[in-house]
Amino acid sequence: MLKVGLLGAGRIATVHARAITGHPGSKLVAVADVVTAAAEKLAAEFGCETRSAEAILNDPAIDAVLIATSTDTHSGFIEMATAAGKAVLCEKPVDLSLERARACLAKTAKTGRPVMIGFNRRFDPNFAALKAAADAGEIGKRELLTITSFDPAPPPVAYVKVSGGLFRDMMIHDFDMANFIMGAAPVKISATGSCIVDAEIGAAGDVDTAVVTMTYADGRIAVIKNSRRAVYGYDQRIELLGAEGLLEAENVLENTVVKSTAAGVTSAKPTYFFLERYMPAYMAEWAAFVAAVSTGKPVPVSLADGVLALAMAEAAAQSVATGMPVAVPVV
Amino acid sequence: MLKVGLLGAGRIATVHARAITGHPGSKLVAVADVVTAAAEKLAAEFGCETRSAEAILNDPAIDAVLIATSTDTHSGFIEMATAAGKAVLCEKPVDLSLERARACLAKTAKTGRPVMIGFNRRFDPNFAALKAAADAGEIGKRELLTITSFDPAPPPVAYVKVSGGLFRDMMIHDFDMANFIMGAAPVKISATGSCIVDAEIGAAGDVDTAVVTMTYADGRIAVIKNSRRAVYGYDQRIELLGAEGLLEAENVLENTVVKSTAAGVTSAKPTYFFLERYMPAYMAEWAAFVAAVSTGKPVPVSLADGVLALAMAEAAAQSVATGMPVAVPVV
Amino acid sequence: MLKVGLLGAGRIATVHARAITGHPGSKLVAVADVVTAAAEKLAAEFGCETRSAEAILNDPAIDAVLIATSTDTHSGFIEMATAAGKAVLCEKPVDLSLERARACLAKTAKTGRPVMIGFNRRFDPNFAALKAAADAGEIGKRELLTITSFDPAPPPVAYVKVSGGLFRDMMIHDFDMANFIMGAAPVKISATGSCIVDAEIGAAGDVDTAVVTMTYADGRIAVIKNSRRAVYGYDQRIELLGAEGLLEAENVLENTVVKSTAAGVTSAKPTYFFLERYMPAYMAEWAAFVAAVSTGKPVPVSLADGVLALAMAEAAAQSVATGMPVAVPVV
Amino acid sequence: MLKVGLLGAGRIATVHARAITGHPGSKLVAVADVVTAAAEKLAAEFGCETRSAEAILNDPAIDAVLIATSTDTHSGFIEMATAAGKAVLCEKPVDLSLERARACLAKTAKTGRPVMIGFNRRFDPNFAALKAAADAGEIGKRELLTITSFDPAPPPVAYVKVSGGLFRDMMIHDFDMANFIMGAAPVKISATGSCIVDAEIGAAGDVDTAVVTMTYADGRIAVIKNSRRAVYGYDQRIELLGAEGLLEAENVLENTVVKSTAAGVTSAKPTYFFLERYMPAYMAEWAAFVAAVSTGKPVPVSLADGVLALAMAEAAAQSVATGMPVAVPVV
Repeated sequence: MLKVGLLGAGRIATVHARAITGHPGSKLVAVADVVTAAAEKLAAEFGCETRSAEAILNDPAIDAVLIATSTDTHSGFIEMATAAGKAVLCEKPVDLSLERARACLAKTAKTGRPVMIGFNRRFDPNFAALKAAADAGEIGKRELLTITSFDPAPPPVAYVKVSGGLFRDMMIHDFDMANFIMGAAPVKISATGSCIVDAEIGAAGDVDTAVVTMTYADGRIAVIKNSRRAVYGYDQRIELLGAEGLLEAENVLENTVVKSTAAGVTSAKPTYFFLERYMPAYMAEWAAFVAAVSTGKPVPVSLADGVLALAMAEAAAQSVATGMPVAVPVV
Repeated sequence: MLKVGLLGAGRIATVHARAITGHPGSKLVAVADVVTAAAEKLAAEFGCETRSAEAILNDPAIDAVLIATSTDTHSGFIEMATAAGKAVLCEKPVDLSLERARACLAKTAKTGRPVMIGFNRRFDPNFAALKAAADAGEIGKRELLTITSFDPAPPPVAYVKVSGGLFRDMMIHDFDMANFIMGAAPVKISATGSCIVDAEIGAAGDVDTAVVTMTYADGRIAVIKNSRRAVYGYDQRIELLGAEGLLEAENVLENTVVKSTAAGVTSAKPTYFFLERYMPAYMAEWAAFVAAVSTGKPVPVSLADGVLALAMAEAAAQSVATGMPVAVPVV
Repeated sequence: MLKVGLLGAGRIATVHARAITGHPGSKLVAVADVVTAAAEKLAAEFGCETRSAEAILNDPAIDAVLIATSTDTHSGFIEMATAAGKAVLCEKPVDLSLERARACLAKTAKTGRPVMIGFNRRFDPNFAALKAAADAGEIGKRELLTITSFDPAPPPVAYVKVSGGLFRDMMIHDFDMANFIMGAAPVKISATGSCIVDAEIGAAGDVDTAVVTMTYADGRIAVIKNSRRAVYGYDQRIELLGAEGLLEAENVLENTVVKSTAAGVTSAKPTYFFLERYMPAYMAEWAAFVAAVSTGKPVPVSLADGVLALAMAEAAAQSVATGMPVAVPVV
Repeated sequence: MLKVGLLGAGRIATVHARAITGHPGSKLVAVADVVTAAAEKLAAEFGCETRSAEAILNDPAIDAVLIATSTDTHSGFIEMATAAGKAVLCEKPVDLSLERARACLAKTAKTGRPVMIGFNRRFDPNFAALKAAADAGEIGKRELLTITSFDPAPPPVAYVKVSGGLFRDMMIHDFDMANFIMGAAPVKISATGSCIVDAEIGAAGDVDTAVVTMTYADGRIAVIKNSRRAVYGYDQRIELLGAEGLLEAENVLENTVVKSTAAGVTSAKPTYFFLERYMPAYMAEWAAFVAAVSTGKPVPVSLADGVLALAMAEAAAQSVATGMPVAVPVV
């Protein structure tokens, strides 16, 4: 039974609390949050203690720490937790600074403790099935990947300002997905970004619509498309052309009802946002973490994976800023 | 080059004229219609003569006659044309009277001339592909067939009154389709019919919604569903359950555009009615007739097939009238 | 907090245990099963006591009883539990004997206690959405209903022998669904049944493939199709034609991946069987029961609904036996 | 009645001959081809004369010329035909040299004769419906366009060598489609290309897989993806994200049959290649040309449109060569 401390008590921490308490091999011991009321609410709902982060990190009875705090604290908590011998599952991104993330990776590596980064989409059953089919050789050599990832509505501008920007905050999931599907890191990134959805996002120095093209050492190509607004719901699709076929992971719809009237044939919309779409993925992510930590096998998404995705985000941001392709640094 | 005379110059005759003139192996020589203006209009459009039906039937230079006149003249023209040595393609139904149709079959058989009945749906590429897959054994033994056949809107009541009723006029296509797909005639028919779409149809003594269940000697089952109204378009689908799978032929849509908005995900409607849906089928039907007649092979839909479908329609009508299952007579 | 006793510890009881323990408003106190080992296993998994059925029924601290025992004990347990003042959720069918079920309904009615029958499919999100759209008038007056309900593989013959037959065991769900969707009971049932899937089922006196046509007092029509075998998975679809359109609830697929190769375009299969397909429905069913019992509102599926579905199953069985339509008795 | 001369008698010329002869408002008078046998075969099939190109161009009785010869002759024939007062429909591309195409445009403009370029895909009913929906404001402001355009199999290397390369030969259709859908020319093109399908294509100096990102003056973005190989058939899709929704034009499938077996749920493949997919588009293209020429209205795809698409192809080729974004010149 893995004894778990939870850092953070916000929306995504609550999702993780449900996964931890719903798993037969893990137990939520305590939660910490700088907002005491949030911690108490979560503790009451899931039947655990509230403590300070330090108390959690210093408790030898706690085996693993799930970090779901604000981004600026991630790398610090990862270092403290691994230094204290804990296994760690940390929400993405590792940090907004690539340099800081690299330092965290170097420091953590010395502890030998497992650190998994929460790229939950790898555990979406649809994307996982696509990856499995590709790995099984069902479409031959992978040649051209397209990831479509549109949010239903733009976030508040206040959030945009602290988010690190579209590439580090939103597309970072897609960078990791590309690495996951293609089984390699690209060598070059060429990004185009615009502010055409919400002028306030542009005023805050960010883009809301972006297309990134990535090339691999062997000539393969990947394209990622992001928009902060798709009024019909959370649009999350993957399409992979191979030498022997095409794999597509379509959207998950709210239900299977189809209505035919004089106005046309209408189906349900995609599920609204990430909580609806990716809840099974969060559950599977936690199960994968528990399975790895329990057996001593490597975690399926490493801290290095998190740093690589961040490096790609930084390259994309630089490409938009300069209007030029950017080489992807080796992590 | 097959020299063809066309009896009838109405809407469906025009469809056939297009098929005859568009086929490299046939030539439309003349058209006849009791409405002279209609014949002249068709003749002008397709570049052929107008003649009387007798003149067409008695012209030794004419090889084949396509009968697209009113139903009450079908069996008479079939008999005359075959007696004159012509090959015949006749629109369905053979006759409204089963007894008359049987007499026509007996008389025609003696001439040895080919007579094909216009069950055009057998030549729809989708239904033909379903049939081919079933024949290729792709779903194993056929067990349970469902035919959905809804018109977009009810016909004028004046038409209903002379049509012979829903079973002889509309469902007769589906009876033939069941025979085509199942490769056998049923032994028993149990029909349910209601007038729930248009009360005038009921006042005219007909039903506008019907479900027919048919059982085969070996226990297999088929269901046909008809409605005179599907406001979203012509709904023409087939579903066949077999021991090793299911085959479905879906509707043909107006186009492939899908629109996702806050209101849902909307596709195009099915093509509106039989002219839109079955135009390729009419072309393929004619090509099959020409191929059979030219090579001396049997026509793919025989006069006996037409009589069988009529017998099934009569059994269904009787089942609705009596509320009891009815045995299908041997044709 | 609703305190719940669970009668039965088999497969379906385990599903219900998960629903009870997963709901914030209910607590699983104890489980009873004649197979002691089964009860102990379930109790260990969900953290509750094991007791005898009598001890559960006689415990005044228990508010509600969930009956998931063998069918022959349902009506007796319903009577005992309501006599003891419990609210009841009982698996379908109420009984294999319509007479016995009616007696149970009469006896239970006097207690005034809520009894809900486990027609879980009413709570399937897809069927519920179809029903909601119909109730909202989105396709106008309901005219023609088709329910397709195929199991992936036939049950063991030993099960078939005690099941009460396809109509009472399998199609009973579809009878209730028809009542749910059409908002009325039919007046006449005409059934066709065959043994074409597994000869042993026929030897046991049952059918494995059946089509039932039902007519309503106002002329509307419903068709139910059952097969014990659909090798591609659990095929559970509903199609409702109305005066202003068509509503279809399609199958739930295992995932959204589509693969295009030289062999064709392939999607995932329907989820395998009822545990996969209807797990969300079981959860929603229990939530609806808790909500009704907690607020004193009527349960959404009544004991009378259960007796009606049984009466329809009996009429269908009689129709197959006699080859004649059968009037549906008033419950 | 538009009297038409056809220059060229190859595969695509035959398609056009079918359109010309099938249209009630046009008549195919003569065909010319340097390969005499080809001209005679086409003439025999469609019932027209064979002549030299000069004879066609100099015949005052000929109203319009359709140019379907090899690319290197296009601009010359356009100039001669317009100088002779003919209306022209010319296959794409205008020329392989942008400079030459511009000269042709300048020279032709002085004649005032209508010149239409054969971007037939604008007339595909699916793409036309998508465009119409966007023009009708159904998804609000257009923001992000994606065009997927994969050939089923790479052409012979001999063809690749004279084709002008993937951008001028294949993607030129997609450049025009982007202009058509977005209603504007982009200002910047960033292209990535690889040879990963067929090494011989690379040896011939071309790419076989390419992704092009285009940005518009107002920040909107378009992406075009090309591959020379999609083993499942001709993959021709468009996806347009707007402020109020998404429009997708899906592939046209060979038929509507769906097969469900233990192996999965399988649909038909996309139609194999451009002749199958775009035959209706070729017919509609010719009808649009006849309608414009007959009424004196502007042709729907101008020579300037053809020059613009060529300029975009040249920019894309340059971007791949330099690894840098390229500004789109004003045509």
